[in-house]
Amino acid sequence: MRVSPAELRIESLGDCEHNSPLSATSSVQFVEDERRVLIQHEVLPGDEIHRDLSLEKAGPRRRIFFDPNTTTAAIVTCGGLSPGLNNVIRSIYLELRHTYGVRRVLGIQHGYQGLNPAIGEPPIEIHGEFVENIHHLGGTTLGTSRGPQDPTLVVDFLAQSEIDILFCVGGDGTQRGAGIIAQEIERRGLLKSVVGVPKTIDNDIPFVSLSFGHITALEEAEKVLRAAHTEARGAVGGVALVKLMGRDAGFIAAGAALASQDANFVLVPEVPFPLEGEDGFLYALEKRLQDRGHALIVAAEGAGQHLFPQPRDRQDASGNTLLHDIGGLLRERIMIYFRERNIPMTLKYIDPSYIIRSVPANAWDQILSNHMARRAVHAAMAGKTNMMIGYWDSEFVHVPICSAVAQKKKMDLSDDLWQGVLRSTGQPHW
Amino acid sequence: MRVSPAELRIESLGDCEHNSPLSATSSVQFVEDERRVLIQHEVLPGDEIHRDLSLEKAGPRRRIFFDPNTTTAAIVTCGGLSPGLNNVIRSIYLELRHTYGVRRVLGIQHGYQGLNPAIGEPPIEIHGEFVENIHHLGGTTLGTSRGPQDPTLVVDFLAQSEIDILFCVGGDGTQRGAGIIAQEIERRGLLKSVVGVPKTIDNDIPFVSLSFGHITALEEAEKVLRAAHTEARGAVGGVALVKLMGRDAGFIAAGAALASQDANFVLVPEVPFPLEGEDGFLYALEKRLQDRGHALIVAAEGAGQHLFPQPRDRQDASGNTLLHDIGGLLRERIMIYFRERNIPMTLKYIDPSYIIRSVPANAWDQILSNHMARRAVHAAMAGKTNMMIGYWDSEFVHVPICSAVAQKKKMDLSDDLWQGVLRSTGQPHW
Amino acid sequence: MRVSPAELRIESLGDCEHNSPLSATSSVQFVEDERRVLIQHEVLPGDEIHRDLSLEKAGPRRRIFFDPNTTTAAIVTCGGLSPGLNNVIRSIYLELRHTYGVRRVLGIQHGYQGLNPAIGEPPIEIHGEFVENIHHLGGTTLGTSRGPQDPTLVVDFLAQSEIDILFCVGGDGTQRGAGIIAQEIERRGLLKSVVGVPKTIDNDIPFVSLSFGHITALEEAEKVLRAAHTEARGAVGGVALVKLMGRDAGFIAAGAALASQDANFVLVPEVPFPLEGEDGFLYALEKRLQDRGHALIVAAEGAGQHLFPQPRDRQDASGNTLLHDIGGLLRERIMIYFRERNIPMTLKYIDPSYIIRSVPANAWDQILSNHMARRAVHAAMAGKTNMMIGYWDSEFVHVPICSAVAQKKKMDLSDDLWQGVLRSTGQPHW
Amino acid sequence: MRVSPAELRIESLGDCEHNSPLSATSSVQFVEDERRVLIQHEVLPGDEIHRDLSLEKAGPRRRIFFDPNTTTAAIVTCGGLSPGLNNVIRSIYLELRHTYGVRRVLGIQHGYQGLNPAIGEPPIEIHGEFVENIHHLGGTTLGTSRGPQDPTLVVDFLAQSEIDILFCVGGDGTQRGAGIIAQEIERRGLLKSVVGVPKTIDNDIPFVSLSFGHITALEEAEKVLRAAHTEARGAVGGVALVKLMGRDAGFIAAGAALASQDANFVLVPEVPFPLEGEDGFLYALEKRLQDRGHALIVAAEGAGQHLFPQPRDRQDASGNTLLHDIGGLLRERIMIYFRERNIPMTLKYIDPSYIIRSVPANAWDQILSNHMARRAVHAAMAGKTNMMIGYWDSEFVHVPICSAVAQKKKMDLSDDLWQGVLRSTGQPHW
Repeated sequence: MRVSPAELRIESLGDCEHNSPLSATSSVQFVEDERRVLIQHEVLPGDEIHRDLSLEKAGPRRRIFFDPNTTTAAIVTCGGLSPGLNNVIRSIYLELRHTYGVRRVLGIQHGYQGLNPAIGEPPIEIHGEFVENIHHLGGTTLGTSRGPQDPTLVVDFLAQSEIDILFCVGGDGTQRGAGIIAQEIERRGLLKSVVGVPKTIDNDIPFVSLSFGHITALEEAEKVLRAAHTEARGAVGGVALVKLMGRDAGFIAAGAALASQDANFVLVPEVPFPLEGEDGFLYALEKRLQDRGHALIVAAEGAGQHLFPQPRDRQDASGNTLLHDIGGLLRERIMIYFRERNIPMTLKYIDPSYIIRSVPANAWDQILSNHMARRAVHAAMAGKTNMMIGYWDSEFVHVPICSAVAQKKKMDLSDDLWQGVLRSTGQPHW
Repeated sequence: MRVSPAELRIESLGDCEHNSPLSATSSVQFVEDERRVLIQHEVLPGDEIHRDLSLEKAGPRRRIFFDPNTTTAAIVTCGGLSPGLNNVIRSIYLELRHTYGVRRVLGIQHGYQGLNPAIGEPPIEIHGEFVENIHHLGGTTLGTSRGPQDPTLVVDFLAQSEIDILFCVGGDGTQRGAGIIAQEIERRGLLKSVVGVPKTIDNDIPFVSLSFGHITALEEAEKVLRAAHTEARGAVGGVALVKLMGRDAGFIAAGAALASQDANFVLVPEVPFPLEGEDGFLYALEKRLQDRGHALIVAAEGAGQHLFPQPRDRQDASGNTLLHDIGGLLRERIMIYFRERNIPMTLKYIDPSYIIRSVPANAWDQILSNHMARRAVHAAMAGKTNMMIGYWDSEFVHVPICSAVAQKKKMDLSDDLWQGVLRSTGQPHW
Repeated sequence: MRVSPAELRIESLGDCEHNSPLSATSSVQFVEDERRVLIQHEVLPGDEIHRDLSLEKAGPRRRIFFDPNTTTAAIVTCGGLSPGLNNVIRSIYLELRHTYGVRRVLGIQHGYQGLNPAIGEPPIEIHGEFVENIHHLGGTTLGTSRGPQDPTLVVDFLAQSEIDILFCVGGDGTQRGAGIIAQEIERRGLLKSVVGVPKTIDNDIPFVSLSFGHITALEEAEKVLRAAHTEARGAVGGVALVKLMGRDAGFIAAGAALASQDANFVLVPEVPFPLEGEDGFLYALEKRLQDRGHALIVAAEGAGQHLFPQPRDRQDASGNTLLHDIGGLLRERIMIYFRERNIPMTLKYIDPSYIIRSVPANAWDQILSNHMARRAVHAAMAGKTNMMIGYWDSEFVHVPICSAVAQKKKMDLSDDLWQGVLRSTGQPHW
Repeated sequence: MRVSPAELRIESLGDCEHNSPLSATSSVQFVEDERRVLIQHEVLPGDEIHRDLSLEKAGPRRRIFFDPNTTTAAIVTCGGLSPGLNNVIRSIYLELRHTYGVRRVLGIQHGYQGLNPAIGEPPIEIHGEFVENIHHLGGTTLGTSRGPQDPTLVVDFLAQSEIDILFCVGGDGTQRGAGIIAQEIERRGLLKSVVGVPKTIDNDIPFVSLSFGHITALEEAEKVLRAAHTEARGAVGGVALVKLMGRDAGFIAAGAALASQDANFVLVPEVPFPLEGEDGFLYALEKRLQDRGHALIVAAEGAGQHLFPQPRDRQDASGNTLLHDIGGLLRERIMIYFRERNIPMTLKYIDPSYIIRSVPANAWDQILSNHMARRAVHAAMAGKTNMMIGYWDSEFVHVPICSAVAQKKKMDLSDDLWQGVLRSTGQPHW
């Protein structure tokens, strides 16, 4: 990720004229705006340390921009489900209400649709009873939808509804949409904060080392791999093929495979692989069956797109390029390959995506989503805008939206994760 | 189920000339061959009680046919996976070895294939270490395959391998195969016992009120329904469609739906339903979306076969008629229906079958499979043959294979289960 | 269980003058009051079949006693937690409201306390939103407490609150209390129905083959046994001692042990065992450690009461005799035994009861509790009173409260369950 | 943590004269010994960056010290159970065997006992079948014990057994023991490597941001808190008190409470709290009961030691000071407090430690333990010794054992975790 110090500067609505209500609490450690987290971890003798490549540290500010008594905040959740959405909603509400004393918190219904009164349902008022038990539920109690709305209409709506702060919980496309809304707000000279909370089950947003929901997804995916392994082992020439999430990055496929230690092939977008020939996947699969009698293949949905004649040019409502169906292709080619060679083979194909993404958050993701949500509130109350909460290894940080959406995060193939996968699968180094 | 008393008579290899080793254990309560379990439960005043319609009670016999010191037993698991298979293997082994003192227990590999030396791998010898931890694993450690083998070859193999007892763990087709093997044994005048242990995740074998693996399947399926419900609720016009196992009977679909209480439509083989028109499924779905905004549909794989132009005539290797793809049909028709009417609708289709059937048995199925396995050993050691262990409500019984495979068990639509489903879904009474 | 036909006769408030609203539903199969379920299952040649020993079958009646339009029902949950309580509350409400059209359903708070206005909080009105998601939660949303209240005060309260039907969900003591309330109602000549729903995680109520919550408890207990087994195996001379529920009957200890197959000793109230001497438990434990190096002991809380100098005479608020602490006794005696003999031994003691009983119901118990709840509503609407829903193997039945509370159900030591435990543990036949 | 650059220098056995077998694999990225991970994350303008305070980065070295063909390695697991132990054993074996080609890998039985032939059992030879499925099991298949052994005897044993590399998997005490062994080896001038893998379910070892097993423990503990919350809510004046692991640090109590969001009081060793008086815990509990009717208390086992008259001076076999029983004290004082004030209160006490620590590792811990294990092998093969694998946020590093055991890691009370707990509980700031 190449980025200049300027691209990491956080926008602010103006001077912070109010004392944080947290000042009354003795033990709170406020964070200065100047405190920054180094991007660089490692150093070789003689190396320079790039102290200007750093991210603004998240956390409570001593002085805040918005007067809690007169502030209205709204929360919107967009895109596909990810474990932890309800935890984010709940913790944003609790931090606004109980820490800052904000009295009016709105829940926008069904994603950005709910910010366009022409097609969406009106917001609901969030209160204590609404959030009481939602942290133990999967999905999002506010509903979701895909795709952006006209920023003019959205900002009209924010103005009419007297919404001062908008929390946008969602992925890549959602954050891009949040950035556009923030720009429209700025264009009009309004003093409204737009703060993003990154939600990506695929874990593919830059400056977010680990996004909430991802570890829960690994947990669920690993269970599926265990089932698939059982199926493969039970059958004569048993092959189980599991398609997992991962449009642009193979973090889920690789992570689940590394956790399970039972996968024999992991196919990810970052590693194009040949299908045919002596170096090809099919031949390697044949050899595996010969040696061990069964095989478990894990394919990210974005893997093997180079195997299709031409790229897809259609997009879904979120603006994601529609992918070719690698699961279907592999099924077909595996079937043909073994049938032609008259080798007994039983193929089980499993596509568990909806099951994986709609479960409640596990303990880790409950903690992570809570932390992110509360820091998003601190940032917004301090008047930060057009930014997103990030997580640089062990520290929560502020990331300008434009830098967060400039590109997708991908696996570094020389890194622990992929090297671990290669070691545990023994698959060819394509 | 119509059946005559004669059809419930159990075959035996001959006189039981050995004392059961269990005689040494004070607390065992032996079961007399004459002790029978009434099929009839209910009675109205004036009704006759059919005492001759009864099943031979399972359990240890005081006198046994086979001399444990010189007996070899073999276990074969066939057909699709079901939670509890490893528990059955383990408990058969332990009962043979530790209760009866049988020294040689073989594991046939990959189903009936392993009884045909031309294509199968040779049996393995089962010992204590082999079974030590398998009761906590899904699948079958012996492997499985579909389809029968030539009974002549099989009985040749049993004779050569000096196998005296063959335990056939499997469904409808497997039991039919077991019956044919038993007949070939009888034709040759051999003294070998063939005892079936019913394995049907669909719970569709007669005289087996509840088969092992079924409750675990409900447990797993219910989790999937919860995920699907979450998906449906999150989306605009959210419809989740879950295809579950159930070729001929809707027990899994109905049971999981009744457990979850969140399903709105349950489609099963026993209830043909119209798709179009005012009484049709699609119109009912539209109304549900109008009223509540989301819907959860559960379809057994054997549901709605009448909606296809003509019955399928191809069969899989197990002899099951290949079904038309009701999941695919419903997906397509639902999409078209709402697109034509311009009603926003988001469809999520989930097919979790492999995930459901390959998990380890839950506590209940661990108990049930253990009971069935040990009773199968008692029956076999007593020289019973051409029979299967049944479970008539709370009692384990012996069922002649021919009666067990004469037809499939289906849901009684006036019974608790289906009535409960109708009440909890509120779906039309088709 | 000795019982006379007269003791199985169900009381009724009077003639059923209303048609059931279910009559409008074509597929319902009404149950006649005369339809009875035989208690006897088995028969030997020459045996008499006791057709008069039978239980009234539960289910919807064609004619009902209460006019749904003017009827108020109330639900109370008492005693210790059991998985499924919220499912019972929800299904009673839904059946009353949606099947029968009853408009007013009250939730009594914190058990029988809530029926005594002097000490309890007033009832809440149950509505659709209240029950919407409670079936996925453990515990009871109505709260609970132990012990009865003065029946005069209770019936005063029922009269003042115009409660026509009272559903009492609870164990032995709760049902006894329900019977006393029903008698007080009858004494006053009131037309109020009292219907019990048996809740016993220990599974020890007569005429209830399987009570809701019990299988979930086995599931959870089995997980604990697996953890305990892991602890025992890891340590030098590792002994894990797990105390499980089971005051009067060992169903949980035996069932969990049978499911786990890893327990080596199961101590239950039904089987007094010697501690010392060559036939004693401690010597058997020593031998087990010698042979295998580790041991897993499961003790029901009511086991080994004979080992204490004299019976306890104090009772808890529910009227249960307070038990001596067998867990503590065993810990101490095991420690002393091995210390005296200088044998290395590491003891881990686990008491998981609260964790086991407060989880949500599993799929099976969700189904079972739903069935019981809906049948309780059928019975109550038909004017049955002073009775409890029973479950005689596969059939739901009506049981007079006095017969249900006459004694506790215990394990039959010659039956499948205990015999299975003896076989899987290999423990001495005390 | 104060530490000097010198204290972070890693010892090495000598020159690396062999090429790593990994050189043959194109994609591997070797790590230079000079590559270091900065300890410092954050910087304020004007702050110095301490580049000399850094840790040697872990990972495969291009040149290695030991010749795989002639090297023998041994693995020992010590102390209490933690999820992931079997994963560590398995991954160490696989990395040694398959990546490096080491042929002889021994498993030391039952902790350091197994290194003292006078009392321990001899090592077992680890092979592929032994480790095949152990990654899905809790506990340690090698067994464990507490306490060190005489280093003279241990090094004699290593010499006799021709063990070149010893992997010591364990906590604080185990690592201290490993350091002493390494010193004895050095004293004798032997060329044997001792490499530690930190195992601390409490997560209290310095330079290990997150230890394997800890997140699984949070997951399990959170389930227990959910059950406890259910118990508390069900009862009149319901108070649930859960004692969790955490001798010196409150990471488990705080993490589980933060995940659950249902705890009202979290008591940890880092925060002494008064019991009595207006600022005391008991009064705060009374107020909570008044306001909300129920309360959930989470206490780390090392909390509140200041409440006992004098410190304990006895130690367990691992050298940990025996703690006073805070669970027992709180139970008693809570009971007395409410009884004296005549306030209805029901207390449920839960101590789930053994259940939490003996489950299999979750996906995250499977990954983490695999990474640590493989890096331990890289370090050992490169001749590093008297060191432990660390994890500094997102990077695996080498830590000298003396620095790792110099003190225990504790929660920073101004940090995210504890601040999050204060916010989610609303408890007093003691």
